[in-house]
Amino acid sequence: MNPKRIPFLSRLDLTHGKVDLSHGGGGRAMAQLIDELFIKHFDNDLLRQRNDQALFAVPAGRLVISTDGHVISPLFFPGGDIGSLAVHGTVNDVAMSGAKPLYLAAGFILEEGLPLADLEKIVISMAAAAQSAGTPIITGDTKVVERGKGDGVFITTTGVGIVPKGVNISGNRAQPGCAILLSGPIGDHGVAIMAGRENLQFGTTLVSDSAALNSLVAAMVAAAPADIHCLRDPTRGGLATALNELAQQSGVGMVIDEAQIPIKDEVKAACEILGLDPLYVANEGKLVCICNAVAAERLLAVMGQHPLGRDAAIIGEVVADHHHFVEMRTAFGGRRIVDWPVGEQLPRIC
Amino acid sequence: MNPKRIPFLSRLDLTHGKVDLSHGGGGRAMAQLIDELFIKHFDNDLLRQRNDQALFAVPAGRLVISTDGHVISPLFFPGGDIGSLAVHGTVNDVAMSGAKPLYLAAGFILEEGLPLADLEKIVISMAAAAQSAGTPIITGDTKVVERGKGDGVFITTTGVGIVPKGVNISGNRAQPGCAILLSGPIGDHGVAIMAGRENLQFGTTLVSDSAALNSLVAAMVAAAPADIHCLRDPTRGGLATALNELAQQSGVGMVIDEAQIPIKDEVKAACEILGLDPLYVANEGKLVCICNAVAAERLLAVMGQHPLGRDAAIIGEVVADHHHFVEMRTAFGGRRIVDWPVGEQLPRIC
Repeated sequence: MNPKRIPFLSRLDLTHGKVDLSHGGGGRAMAQLIDELFIKHFDNDLLRQRNDQALFAVPAGRLVISTDGHVISPLFFPGGDIGSLAVHGTVNDVAMSGAKPLYLAAGFILEEGLPLADLEKIVISMAAAAQSAGTPIITGDTKVVERGKGDGVFITTTGVGIVPKGVNISGNRAQPGCAILLSGPIGDHGVAIMAGRENLQFGTTLVSDSAALNSLVAAMVAAAPADIHCLRDPTRGGLATALNELAQQSGVGMVIDEAQIPIKDEVKAACEILGLDPLYVANEGKLVCICNAVAAERLLAVMGQHPLGRDAAIIGEVVADHHHFVEMRTAFGGRRIVDWPVGEQLPRIC
Repeated sequence: MNPKRIPFLSRLDLTHGKVDLSHGGGGRAMAQLIDELFIKHFDNDLLRQRNDQALFAVPAGRLVISTDGHVISPLFFPGGDIGSLAVHGTVNDVAMSGAKPLYLAAGFILEEGLPLADLEKIVISMAAAAQSAGTPIITGDTKVVERGKGDGVFITTTGVGIVPKGVNISGNRAQPGCAILLSGPIGDHGVAIMAGRENLQFGTTLVSDSAALNSLVAAMVAAAPADIHCLRDPTRGGLATALNELAQQSGVGMVIDEAQIPIKDEVKAACEILGLDPLYVANEGKLVCICNAVAAERLLAVMGQHPLGRDAAIIGEVVADHHHFVEMRTAFGGRRIVDWPVGEQLPRIC
């Protein structure tokens, strides 16, 4: 049943209007925002029911849930915006268990004064990303805080997905002898955001790699369901942090080859100018896969046939190491430890 | 497997320390915050796996998902804090489908400078609320924004639950002839928050009614599974908004009796001083139930035996009305329309 609309006096002014506190008050203004913006663009039967929760049927099995707050600054950046990022980030976190993401929930925290035109752009982009990933946004929430108590818009997305039978992927399953695969070049997202920020112009055409990885994961899982031990998307803290997390969780060491790690020349150049190590720069459309060595070439071939895995590479192997160190064979033939990042290189990168 | 801890140089300073941007950077400082605060207090096997998602088994059936951002100001108030509220709010939204809430996910957006001691208090209170409601927090996320770009802490919680067979509860199922039940006195939460805010002292001992309603709902559903048509918790916008939403969704009218609506004398007095209509003041531990008239007395008896439904009352009935008006028979024998709220009475009440 499609409930009747509340008779609003006039439509939302999406050209000149701004978010005000009444949009979070639970009354007529909030109902109008939900009707004319969120339901209009996210359009699906579950959302249209207007309950405070959404109901969906599942078969018996294993579900995963993941949640991610998005506070990126600026809201709009080369290659995306906070809306598309909020979909990709959560779809990817769900997919990194090997699951097929099913549905998303979205919680918006809006700052008083946010132009409704900006919010509409973000909602449209979010709706397109959700549609493209096949993960409808079926429930949500809107809060408004006073000017100066937020920063435009924060979006917390939560996703649920279903894990196919026979798939057993977790960060604690890396074993000595496993191969380490990376789906493509690192650092694009972080460098694109820096370029988007005020006073930092590289004259580069770099765009964020922000993308939903669920179809790539589905292809990999279909090709070698029992051979994939770990998947992780190297977001905040970059590849270095993702590998250290996996080494720590699994109680193993890793050795990677600098020469095998794909990275674009312009990212390398931008990182040199900024004094950043690309190993620590965030990605939003890449994954690390740790798999049985015998399946590595097969998985690499599957990844190479997917648009998001074209430049995939085998970048190293898991080793026994009670220190749980990640070591890198450098291009010059030496070895160095790739440690956890200590400070904060790039705040609000996602 | 319980992964080994990262060897931190020193423990978090929970007495004098403050949140800084590195706590959201994905590196060592964030891992330490997660270890020594979130995992320590939320402690459960799923969270301890430290994956970016949590996996759980479900039988075939109907699940619900609900998400809610919490931006309440002040963070600590009489009867609770943002941590307990963030659990209760989402548990209740899940329960309002008749579902048994199973698990929670929590996304934190922290402002740089937040005292770690405050964060610890909130996390401890959140953990206690989750344990008491039987809904472990199994996955989460932490972001940090610069000073002046947030307001201490915002918490977005998402819950999943499972709907028992034979239960079919939705806001669009109210029918003429149904009875309207309310689980207890209205307005406590909103008035307690106002009292907690600076420069507003009523000299009252009122505390928020913030509470998890899932055990009350379970008792009601067990007693009359097929007779409950709608459940809703009258939070933002109060009882008036909840009833208008249900009338709108179901395409019906409602008539309620002012004399039957439970309200504490001190809440009534505080609302008079503040110029608030208690019908529009937020509650965080109350529910509205719309049920078959024949089951109303039975449900009322079940509610009355539960600590959170002791003062439950039948407050009115659903009628046919193509305007979808909510009307109130006043204590003086007249009738007035209880409209949607238009502006924002009490910003950041939840």
